[in-house]
Amino acid sequence: MRKIAFTFAVLFLSCICVAQSTSPNVVHYKLDEKKLKYLFATSEPVLHLKSDDVLETNTVDCFGNVLQKPGDTLSMAKGDNPLTGPFFVDGAEPGDTLAVKILDLQVDSKQGVGTIAQGFGAINSTNYTPMINAPIGEKIWFYPIDQTTNTATFKALDSKFSVKVPLHPFLGCIGVAPAGGEARSSIVPAEFGGNMDSPEASAGNTVYFPVNSPGALLFVGDGHAAMGDGEIGGTAIEVPMRVRVQVHLIKGQKIGWPRFENEEYIMTVGAYRPLDDALRIAYTELVGWMHKDYAISEMDAYELLSEVGEVHLNEMVDPNYVIVAKIKKKYLPPHR
Amino acid sequence: MRKIAFTFAVLFLSCICVAQSTSPNVVHYKLDEKKLKYLFATSEPVLHLKSDDVLETNTVDCFGNVLQKPGDTLSMAKGDNPLTGPFFVDGAEPGDTLAVKILDLQVDSKQGVGTIAQGFGAINSTNYTPMINAPIGEKIWFYPIDQTTNTATFKALDSKFSVKVPLHPFLGCIGVAPAGGEARSSIVPAEFGGNMDSPEASAGNTVYFPVNSPGALLFVGDGHAAMGDGEIGGTAIEVPMRVRVQVHLIKGQKIGWPRFENEEYIMTVGAYRPLDDALRIAYTELVGWMHKDYAISEMDAYELLSEVGEVHLNEMVDPNYVIVAKIKKKYLPPHR
Amino acid sequence: MRKIAFTFAVLFLSCICVAQSTSPNVVHYKLDEKKLKYLFATSEPVLHLKSDDVLETNTVDCFGNVLQKPGDTLSMAKGDNPLTGPFFVDGAEPGDTLAVKILDLQVDSKQGVGTIAQGFGAINSTNYTPMINAPIGEKIWFYPIDQTTNTATFKALDSKFSVKVPLHPFLGCIGVAPAGGEARSSIVPAEFGGNMDSPEASAGNTVYFPVNSPGALLFVGDGHAAMGDGEIGGTAIEVPMRVRVQVHLIKGQKIGWPRFENEEYIMTVGAYRPLDDALRIAYTELVGWMHKDYAISEMDAYELLSEVGEVHLNEMVDPNYVIVAKIKKKYLPPHR
Amino acid sequence: MRKIAFTFAVLFLSCICVAQSTSPNVVHYKLDEKKLKYLFATSEPVLHLKSDDVLETNTVDCFGNVLQKPGDTLSMAKGDNPLTGPFFVDGAEPGDTLAVKILDLQVDSKQGVGTIAQGFGAINSTNYTPMINAPIGEKIWFYPIDQTTNTATFKALDSKFSVKVPLHPFLGCIGVAPAGGEARSSIVPAEFGGNMDSPEASAGNTVYFPVNSPGALLFVGDGHAAMGDGEIGGTAIEVPMRVRVQVHLIKGQKIGWPRFENEEYIMTVGAYRPLDDALRIAYTELVGWMHKDYAISEMDAYELLSEVGEVHLNEMVDPNYVIVAKIKKKYLPPHR
Repeated sequence: MRKIAFTFAVLFLSCICVAQSTSPNVVHYKLDEKKLKYLFATSEPVLHLKSDDVLETNTVDCFGNVLQKPGDTLSMAKGDNPLTGPFFVDGAEPGDTLAVKILDLQVDSKQGVGTIAQGFGAINSTNYTPMINAPIGEKIWFYPIDQTTNTATFKALDSKFSVKVPLHPFLGCIGVAPAGGEARSSIVPAEFGGNMDSPEASAGNTVYFPVNSPGALLFVGDGHAAMGDGEIGGTAIEVPMRVRVQVHLIKGQKIGWPRFENEEYIMTVGAYRPLDDALRIAYTELVGWMHKDYAISEMDAYELLSEVGEVHLNEMVDPNYVIVAKIKKKYLPPHR
Repeated sequence: MRKIAFTFAVLFLSCICVAQSTSPNVVHYKLDEKKLKYLFATSEPVLHLKSDDVLETNTVDCFGNVLQKPGDTLSMAKGDNPLTGPFFVDGAEPGDTLAVKILDLQVDSKQGVGTIAQGFGAINSTNYTPMINAPIGEKIWFYPIDQTTNTATFKALDSKFSVKVPLHPFLGCIGVAPAGGEARSSIVPAEFGGNMDSPEASAGNTVYFPVNSPGALLFVGDGHAAMGDGEIGGTAIEVPMRVRVQVHLIKGQKIGWPRFENEEYIMTVGAYRPLDDALRIAYTELVGWMHKDYAISEMDAYELLSEVGEVHLNEMVDPNYVIVAKIKKKYLPPHR
Repeated sequence: MRKIAFTFAVLFLSCICVAQSTSPNVVHYKLDEKKLKYLFATSEPVLHLKSDDVLETNTVDCFGNVLQKPGDTLSMAKGDNPLTGPFFVDGAEPGDTLAVKILDLQVDSKQGVGTIAQGFGAINSTNYTPMINAPIGEKIWFYPIDQTTNTATFKALDSKFSVKVPLHPFLGCIGVAPAGGEARSSIVPAEFGGNMDSPEASAGNTVYFPVNSPGALLFVGDGHAAMGDGEIGGTAIEVPMRVRVQVHLIKGQKIGWPRFENEEYIMTVGAYRPLDDALRIAYTELVGWMHKDYAISEMDAYELLSEVGEVHLNEMVDPNYVIVAKIKKKYLPPHR
Repeated sequence: MRKIAFTFAVLFLSCICVAQSTSPNVVHYKLDEKKLKYLFATSEPVLHLKSDDVLETNTVDCFGNVLQKPGDTLSMAKGDNPLTGPFFVDGAEPGDTLAVKILDLQVDSKQGVGTIAQGFGAINSTNYTPMINAPIGEKIWFYPIDQTTNTATFKALDSKFSVKVPLHPFLGCIGVAPAGGEARSSIVPAEFGGNMDSPEASAGNTVYFPVNSPGALLFVGDGHAAMGDGEIGGTAIEVPMRVRVQVHLIKGQKIGWPRFENEEYIMTVGAYRPLDDALRIAYTELVGWMHKDYAISEMDAYELLSEVGEVHLNEMVDPNYVIVAKIKKKYLPPHR
């Protein structure tokens, strides 16, 4: 099963080279607000793609773009994380792997928004870690975006302090329809990807998903202009986004959890609670990937990761928590 | 309480400048194997230091330097993490803070050692996360150290693969006597520091500890030549070490958990299980530090960390797990 | 919100009295193997019920009744926890509460089955708590059922030991369609009930569910003849079952999580990982119920539960773990 | 290692019979407030006991008996859980097991006390699960004790409601000096016992501890008149207590964690965070005990516990959480 990882990476990189030399097909989809989805699930595709097509599309922010000025409230949002899609990849069948190379992400607004509110957050009482303490109040921060300096500006609510934060645009939500016919809320990350809130979902990286249903059914949304590790207040700097990705279908190769890859790293995703279990998933997946694709024994891989493995806590606020485990390719044996 | 952080940082940095211009007192202590300790606890000091003294000493590795060649076994070790110390800092009293600036750490051997064994590790059955699965077997890796290239070499046990790993020397164990008269095993990290396995305990960084008993009683040990995030196999590249630190006593200022600081960052430590709780401790400590020393409201600090906070998982293998939360100083308001 | 609990309890008990005095409508549904479901989700109802109807139906065991004799293997099962249903309760709308009184459960076979296998269990490596240790092997135990003595017989595989275990039949799966259009696997417990593996789902108890979709869409399955606390090996004594329940619709009253009630207790369900969070959900729900329906302040309720609250660990093996928190009614103030 | 359990049970029961027929030696120790301890640690014994001696002593409550009337505050307590002891059991050496049969516990006051306060509790922000929410305020409940009806009376602070609660006296703290020279606060439960808050530590039950230091060094304290599962508010009905126990030394037999036993059950203790790990410890210990002393294979034991095992959550408020796992002896094969 895991042998594929290397194989498809190679395939994908080569196919992209080929594709680029022959001008890949570029398809556009402008989001239709009436077709936004709030579930990762099987539903009517908004567009069909072929393997190696480049998709250009756009997303609203996690609040459906409704928070625009002081005085606006979270109650105005119709739902969390409206999704653009799904995109049906022709020929994708359960048991395949879908590779999505993120080519470009552009913040599509002049300001971003961050919120802290009861029920969501790493260090306040939440829906799934409830406490009897008095709830915290709702607060909203607006972040002016300056594309020329590539920064967003944090402005304190309770003092005059402000500071510029560099942009690192990524997709908080990217995923496919879940296995077994499940339909999951767009706030949930799991085996199908989803609301992973992974800064790894940024330009230059490829993300791999297991294909669970015909067409894979790719969804994107929840653009983040920047985010701290853990997304601890419950939101990033939330923005609408212009999205450019290339899909590539890898037939007959199956993975269990999402993976990321770029020139420098191979990376695995683990998602559940507590963080302990998310880490165990991510690191056992990474040991498995190294063992199968890089001809190193499981115990040697385990020891090597103990010395050079990296952990990136993505978020500790969604229903499931997300950890990415990584190793630099320079520490790996040659691909099989 | 937390107002101190800035204050002592400033005090300490300035005192060091002063000290350096006037040549700080340098004291040497060569470890005596008969005086190694296996507890963070009140015990007979091996040496007295004055505030601003520079201490030069050395440590054995976490196995007491007994693993030297293939065929050696973990059963040969007398105990885990033998500690050099304690060092009594004259004038230190409960309620003070001890700052320890790590000036230099040098690997003190030609090879390091890594082990994986039953009972310890992030993705195998352990003493505190026991499973009914068959235990994994004991394995030992030796890492030749090359000081000229500043690397250690991983050599696979089950194949011919080898790869060089850059050195990043740090102290796996650094801490003081615990509060309330507790005595804790040298494998435990907690409020007193201890076996934090923090790569942040490296040259150029200052670590702050609460003083819990007269003299603070500083211990060092468990040198690591390099380590991956989470130390998932249970060990780093374990080495004896030559240690050069400067102590500075901050009177009348009290902290609850260890903190790190350097030119670029302020950093807080959280230690317990699950990782969720370790993170909550680290991030609430960081919010508190920002609020008290940097004149930003708690909610503004919470939001700012949600966008620019950083998390470093130190280890998920010791009895308590350790997370360091950080923020770059460039994102903070001026010190109070 | 929580005021309802008392109200509907009273309504339901009285309605049952009324219903019984006037002979409630009894409807039968014999399961059709082609219509078994593997998701708690909106799907075509197999039958419509009216409030206060008594439903008589039956369920297959969690393996679809395929494990019948030594040599059979888990790979023979088509899916886990095939569900009978859904049953559409006329008039039920989101925001209502569905009460299901469990009138009678009868083991519907001459033997039950228990299994231990890789990937599932509280003290072996699992899908969401993976370990690098060698996986445990698959084992199957058959339990002869003796209806006259109301016992099942455990027969050791590795010795001649056998012992009789008293039957306590309950439904491992009982729940409704989830909120927000989600569809969840029949191995998952959550806010909609589902695979709670609650021994509280037994004859004499009433279970309350939030209605999330028109008709509520009640599912039942996964009959258990008996089970230990935690269901630690991953299964109970699994059996097909004959089921007799009475549904009652409580209009305009909304709950967040499932609840149980009988003459002696009020009980709340919490489901997630780690157990810490499951317990926090269950106990905050119970504090809320006591506060709203029994005119006791939240802090008084918290203290009283600290002295007389009860916790029943249902299972620590499914994707989410389930805890039931309880208080005896004799310790409560009179209903509002 | 575990074979002993049965052996010592038999030895102990028989020795008690013998002892009783020959009138065991009864020794008295009236607590001296100046000699109260706040650590489970090696310290000067207050008394020496011989194996099979009956000890009659007494304990103050967890606040040192300082909370007596409305208006008193937690700040008046000198420390948590003052301990009576240690008692040195002649001949006890590391590697032995100490059995303590609890013969009688009597509430030694006319009222008990319960408190809820910031920093401690299962569903409020605490020291090790900190939250940014506003802290809860300190509240104290006094419980009149009626020895004739064997009840304590809960009286609501915010309404006129009151209710009687039956007494179930037990020792919240019972334990020995820790291994490896550690000294642990009297609020901590761990391998040495300690602040287990186990209702199983009540009259009629025997508790077994590993002997870690010469004389074992038995401590008792923190009497509870009654307590709910989880002790969720952070305290039981706290009372001083008169204590009557018989100690019995089992030479050359070693256990890893405390165990309980009575005529009906064998029981194991697991203590750590999260509850998931506490449960894993308790249940793997129980599987091990069954395997070694009752001649049942580990996998058969695992399956049997999956059907008839019981879990008692003792507390989720101390630094480590405590779970007791049990099986009725009637479900076990004959002792080896």
